[in-house]
Amino acid sequence: MISGTTSVIAHLGWPTEAFKAPLIYNPWFEANGIDAVVVPMGVKAEDYAAFLPVLFRLSNVHGALVTMPHKVTTVSLVDALSTTAAIAGACNAVRRRENGALEGDMFDGTGFVRGVQRKGMAIEGTRCLVVGTGGVGSAIAASLAHAGARTLALYDTRAGSMSELARRLRTHYPALEVPLGSNDPAGYDLVVNCTPLGMREGDPLAFDVARLDPHAFVGEVVMARHLTPLLEAARARGCRIQPGLDMLFEMIPAYLEFFGFGTATPDALRATARVSY
Amino acid sequence: MISGTTSVIAHLGWPTEAFKAPLIYNPWFEANGIDAVVVPMGVKAEDYAAFLPVLFRLSNVHGALVTMPHKVTTVSLVDALSTTAAIAGACNAVRRRENGALEGDMFDGTGFVRGVQRKGMAIEGTRCLVVGTGGVGSAIAASLAHAGARTLALYDTRAGSMSELARRLRTHYPALEVPLGSNDPAGYDLVVNCTPLGMREGDPLAFDVARLDPHAFVGEVVMARHLTPLLEAARARGCRIQPGLDMLFEMIPAYLEFFGFGTATPDALRATARVSY
Repeated sequence: MISGTTSVIAHLGWPTEAFKAPLIYNPWFEANGIDAVVVPMGVKAEDYAAFLPVLFRLSNVHGALVTMPHKVTTVSLVDALSTTAAIAGACNAVRRRENGALEGDMFDGTGFVRGVQRKGMAIEGTRCLVVGTGGVGSAIAASLAHAGARTLALYDTRAGSMSELARRLRTHYPALEVPLGSNDPAGYDLVVNCTPLGMREGDPLAFDVARLDPHAFVGEVVMARHLTPLLEAARARGCRIQPGLDMLFEMIPAYLEFFGFGTATPDALRATARVSY
Repeated sequence: MISGTTSVIAHLGWPTEAFKAPLIYNPWFEANGIDAVVVPMGVKAEDYAAFLPVLFRLSNVHGALVTMPHKVTTVSLVDALSTTAAIAGACNAVRRRENGALEGDMFDGTGFVRGVQRKGMAIEGTRCLVVGTGGVGSAIAASLAHAGARTLALYDTRAGSMSELARRLRTHYPALEVPLGSNDPAGYDLVVNCTPLGMREGDPLAFDVARLDPHAFVGEVVMARHLTPLLEAARARGCRIQPGLDMLFEMIPAYLEFFGFGTATPDALRATARVSY
């Protein structure tokens, strides 16, 4: 129940219609007696730079969850970045320090990797392919490198985004192999779609599922539905899969710690969530 | 349950701790299947002019409830004003028209007058004293004049505010008597405290209750508690009274219509509200 004492966590992105976080956080806050609420705020790209600073001037705004299309832009709008956010070149969380400074962090990659590991796959020494090197793709790449991937292939139709991420990865992980420019999944242990393909009916698949190794693990970041056509095709091929929403559930404990609301297990969050997955 | 499709009504003011509206609107929305939520946003005075326009750029912000200290400032920040808001010199509601223009209106006075009338007092031909000529005081004065008061005395320690309201009242109601400069309640049928006095422990009373006519009706705008010391003293003297929260309940039907959410009776709102009054 929202009241005048409630801490607001702004959920910033556009469009808002597919947002799932309010349906996960808010029941958990209520079940645990935490006086906080996640509120979707549909900010368009052209308004974001003006909105973020004034939002954090509000006395009851405690933090922000940042989603598309603002994750990359946020890097240039905060006063301090975590190491993960700096490598990823993107933020999905912002909080205000006591001195008023805004601090950005990035939990997409953490959530993705935790989910894959919980499903029994060890990242260390593997060959991974990240398709899509925007905010979330860069975050997942940073976290896969951190978790010990041997090869981290990148693909994006935007060559500048791809090569810039490769440069940052090589700077921080000199031993990492970073091949660029192909979305052919053949030969990879882990392949992840980090493009928006799959959000809309009729989107093409992000890569050729027929070329997947059947032992491969396929991950997804699109959360508009539980199983995207890509995941359905990968599962039909025999691959292990991870839906986009799992990444969200796995990253929530990290968010909760960041905002100072304690922590929770993914199972505890599943038990109170008002979304199926 | 807030989701990505929920319309946000921003509740703008500072400090937020005493806000009651979320505890009234949100249960009513839920009980009536309306996908909307009132969210407190603690905007300080110095940030308001920057915040209001960018707030209304958000795709899911449907309107705003405006409270202290922003009601007067809002007049200069919107593109269009209702007649009531123009006379009151204050707004407590803003909505975005389809063309993007912001439209301000004022329901404080409407709510106050409806509440007094519902308690059996007819305003027409009466002598009224309004103590405090800020945003809400001006709104109540405008609505009392509209309801047919014969005399409308004004008092404020800020002489400019008082005389400016008197000027607007005389312009729109040439037959109205508007004595200025005394908060002595002797001889008035209706006396209303429109100052913030009573929000804090130990505040002095806004006028001398011992000078009230026992048949007088005493109203209050402070909502921090059900019965302020002023109302307790007036009731002890035998006066009929109206707590601040009644004004809020009575104005909500007008707000709901303004925002396009249908309407409701005060009793229906009382039945679902999570505040006692």
